Amino acid sequence: MADLYIALLHYPVYDKDRKVVTTSITNMDIHDIARSARTYGVKRYFVATPVRTLRALSEKILDHWEHGYGSVYNETRKEALSLVALTDDLNGVIKEIVQETGETPCVVVTSARSGPRRSSFAEVKMLLDAPGVPLLLVLGTGWGLTEEVLDRANIVLEPIQGVGEYNHLSVRAAAAIMLDRLRQAR
Amino acid sequence: MADLYIALLHYPVYDKDRKVVTTSITNMDIHDIARSARTYGVKRYFVATPVRTLRALSEKILDHWEHGYGSVYNETRKEALSLVALTDDLNGVIKEIVQETGETPCVVVTSARSGPRRSSFAEVKMLLDAPGVPLLLVLGTGWGLTEEVLDRANIVLEPIQGVGEYNHLSVRAAAAIMLDRLRQAR
Repeated sequence: MADLYIALLHYPVYDKDRKVVTTSITNMDIHDIARSARTYGVKRYFVATPVRTLRALSEKILDHWEHGYGSVYNETRKEALSLVALTDDLNGVIKEIVQETGETPCVVVTSARSGPRRSSFAEVKMLLDAPGVPLLLVLGTGWGLTEEVLDRANIVLEPIQGVGEYNHLSVRAAAAIMLDRLRQAR
Repeated sequence: MADLYIALLHYPVYDKDRKVVTTSITNMDIHDIARSARTYGVKRYFVATPVRTLRALSEKILDHWEHGYGSVYNETRKEALSLVALTDDLNGVIKEIVQETGETPCVVVTSARSGPRRSSFAEVKMLLDAPGVPLLLVLGTGWGLTEEVLDRANIVLEPIQGVGEYNHLSVRAAAAIMLDRLRQAR
């Protein structure tokens, strides 16, 4: 089984008018996705933003849960948040995985938009189930990762399809569903 | 295909010391689960709390998204939040479904704890895929629904199993995964 990593990018992503923006870090994104990541055996959860002061603030909050009062108040939260690593951008994430594993990860980006060159969940699950290089699942905030990020990925994952046309899941819900589909034994 | 309803109960649930408490309504629970519910064709999403002032506050926030500035700013959010109904407790939820459909729903409660009398996702999906009475999926906040709620349900759904022992998903993530498992065509 290949190792699985997750990254949440706050830049470059679209806003609702398809302008390229940097979104703010959201506390709930860190907690929820860390808990899902821990549940599904993810090796590390990278939270990436180019804004240094937001990284510093997040470090402070993580420290509360990992070493401060939060670590005593809620141990399961500590266990989840210990997976979180703050970094600047996608290159920084890849560099850290290379340092950790000695291998360049296969970059799988996600998008709620359909388009050419999408791989199915079943195809990506097959990669993960076999031994191989680490797999990095990249999620975007705001209105999603820019085309530039999609273009440089090894794989673009198909969108999550519900029962109709509506596909505006929160990134927290999308991450949970993706991990369940990719890691669940069935 | 049977109709699917969801309810999020803020009472009676356990706190971390297994005391029975009423939790506070969380804005993110309403938004995230409403978006997942809309994605997976849920008929209505009931947010239940016995605290009348919290219901009133939530109504005000929902009104912003459904009729106020939010409805123009973000139409997809409006579409999701139009599924939300505020009510007092599980009896109130069941009463509303009976009024809406003329039928008493099959009550499926969820728990992260394992125990006797759990039905698998596959079994509940089979019920949903066939024509029949509406199905009500009940989720708890805090440290989960009390045994009393589990005891009066028609069905107790098995916990979501990740890849290890850790099973502390957020209720937002759990709801998303459950809907995907129960409603996804595969």
